[in-house]
Amino acid sequence: MDEVKLKPGADRRVIQGHRWIFSNEVDGPLKDFEPGRWVDVVSPKGVRLGSGYINPHSLIAVRLAAPAGVRPDRSWLEERIRQALRYRQQAYPGENTYRLVYGESDGLPGLIVDRYEDVLVAQVTTAGMAVLEPMVEEVLADLLQPRAVVARNDTRARLLEGLSLEKRVVRGDLPESLQVPLHGLTLTVDPLNGQKTGLFLDQRDNREALRRWVKDAEVLDLFCYQGAWSLVAAASGARRVVGVDQSREAVDRAARDAAANGLEDRCRFHASDVLDFLKRAGRNAFDVVILDPPAFAKTKSALKNALRGYTDLNRRAMLALRPGGILVSCSCSYHVSEPLFQDMLVRAAQAAGRTLRILEARGQALDHPVLAAMPETRYLKCHFLQVLDRT
Amino acid sequence: MDEVKLKPGADRRVIQGHRWIFSNEVDGPLKDFEPGRWVDVVSPKGVRLGSGYINPHSLIAVRLAAPAGVRPDRSWLEERIRQALRYRQQAYPGENTYRLVYGESDGLPGLIVDRYEDVLVAQVTTAGMAVLEPMVEEVLADLLQPRAVVARNDTRARLLEGLSLEKRVVRGDLPESLQVPLHGLTLTVDPLNGQKTGLFLDQRDNREALRRWVKDAEVLDLFCYQGAWSLVAAASGARRVVGVDQSREAVDRAARDAAANGLEDRCRFHASDVLDFLKRAGRNAFDVVILDPPAFAKTKSALKNALRGYTDLNRRAMLALRPGGILVSCSCSYHVSEPLFQDMLVRAAQAAGRTLRILEARGQALDHPVLAAMPETRYLKCHFLQVLDRT
Repeated sequence: MDEVKLKPGADRRVIQGHRWIFSNEVDGPLKDFEPGRWVDVVSPKGVRLGSGYINPHSLIAVRLAAPAGVRPDRSWLEERIRQALRYRQQAYPGENTYRLVYGESDGLPGLIVDRYEDVLVAQVTTAGMAVLEPMVEEVLADLLQPRAVVARNDTRARLLEGLSLEKRVVRGDLPESLQVPLHGLTLTVDPLNGQKTGLFLDQRDNREALRRWVKDAEVLDLFCYQGAWSLVAAASGARRVVGVDQSREAVDRAARDAAANGLEDRCRFHASDVLDFLKRAGRNAFDVVILDPPAFAKTKSALKNALRGYTDLNRRAMLALRPGGILVSCSCSYHVSEPLFQDMLVRAAQAAGRTLRILEARGQALDHPVLAAMPETRYLKCHFLQVLDRT
Repeated sequence: MDEVKLKPGADRRVIQGHRWIFSNEVDGPLKDFEPGRWVDVVSPKGVRLGSGYINPHSLIAVRLAAPAGVRPDRSWLEERIRQALRYRQQAYPGENTYRLVYGESDGLPGLIVDRYEDVLVAQVTTAGMAVLEPMVEEVLADLLQPRAVVARNDTRARLLEGLSLEKRVVRGDLPESLQVPLHGLTLTVDPLNGQKTGLFLDQRDNREALRRWVKDAEVLDLFCYQGAWSLVAAASGARRVVGVDQSREAVDRAARDAAANGLEDRCRFHASDVLDFLKRAGRNAFDVVILDPPAFAKTKSALKNALRGYTDLNRRAMLALRPGGILVSCSCSYHVSEPLFQDMLVRAAQAAGRTLRILEARGQALDHPVLAAMPETRYLKCHFLQVLDRT
């Protein structure tokens, strides 16, 4: 088996459990390695630390995936996916909609698989996983007998790995419209064209945590997209739910799902810019505001502007709340760390002249587990906050 | 009204929402102020920032509690306690056992009140709150008509404030044995002599989060005290629960509560040193381990040794788990910050040769809200972790 040797000191992070080797940590030339080739990684003193795949064109030169000497054959892959499945069955017993494989956290770097009942949606983000992709599809088909498998290989991260963009049905046939049970509701999923298929499974447990706060409440759901938060609020006793998203198509689908679940009398959805809507909303207008914006800081360089944007939105959301109201504030930007997120919230509260209490500091749903030694596997912040008059 | 002026720059933290003034931030002598006296706090430029009580003998010279000019009269206090009560009724509808007042987070610095149905347990930790104590008891009695009010003024923090230690029934009469409904169980509380009365309400939501992981499991509950975690596990489908605590009295009570809830066939409690027990327990012996030790780092100077102790315990707990097992690891030491806690877990996993996944990074129960601008109000870490073989 091919091998790469690490420079002095570069083995420490790996020994702690991290799974990435950066290109500047490799002792020797990378360029002769074919992208996606499986290699052993060896410490400066010659200890075999593990095996994984290499890409000489990526900043992340090697992604470790197995003990040293292991080859990524079918039985290895099958055991990985079986283990991922067992964990989801434990986390969500009796359910069949969840993220089945979450990359490094499931020992399968570069692979995401979401399960929506009998439809699987896979995403391959690296050259190394692209090599294994046919085998992945085979194992998934054998284990789960899906009605359809969709490849959502349209994330721009693939370009950094020298992969092309595509999305297509790779197996079976996809129903015209796919409905799945979640939160006790029936929700529409768009595996082929939806942003994250529309369901944002990473917020699943957080939406469950919303239930206790919305009884008889007036709820504002900002960046509501297809309305998952809104519908959970309406189904949990909210008196009135207002969802806002700039996409007309998304809010139309939210309204259709509201009707399909018998919740249309309590829900209104508006196609509008969120900031414009907030400016018009006035003060003390809602009991609960959900603020779940898209990632503002997609890169580290965008962080400063992103934090300014988050602060302004949160300040306005706080002012839209009645005293004692609940703000559910989220950020899915990896670069906005937990401490930065909390600093931003404190600044927003100061600017709003409010006292802010953190009731729960939540993260990703259970089917997006975080590898403790690899902070890169954690990205979602979702804080349940209470906004009080200053005392 | 008396006032204290802040030194240049010392107003910044207060403007952000922090509620403490340290003695070295006050411009002018403190010694002439009577401990507990109510004062206005004024910025270097003469802006009135708020009011609160002073103690010239404490490092925390002033604890802010109200807007400038406000006096802590009965109607002010009543409104504070009413607001605290409304929030608990929202967080735990239909329930009457919770922390009713959590100090600074409820705008009542130096006061803790726990409610166990019709028994209230109050703790006053500062000279300023001691001045208000009779009024607090009166308001609590009027609002809640308790059968008994107990003063647990036996925390050593009082000595720093020049207060004496005492515990006694201040109103009504305390039943010989107090049982309260919690987690769908009936649990025994000892308001007068128990550590945190025995229930550790701050772990309440975390114990609810345990339920999904224990079905058919063999569970080890370390530092189990009176067995609250154990009993929730047993009631949620655990096949076998082993609780360990060095206090014979505590485990005897745990066994009695297990019997009272019809769970004695599944629970065994051992009076033993936890580390000794873990050394004898062997490897791969349990599906779930709960590790909820007392605060090892009571002061900042004790931190290094405390982290060593936590690491060793967590390493051993990980080894006692079967592959894929769940570790619920807690620390209630304020000085062990969230990042330090996670670093410790990564080191423990490395020493155990295991891969560690964070499923949920949890904190205090909802009735212990955190003031966003005041990190001192957050102390509890409770991580749900999965321990895997290294891959």
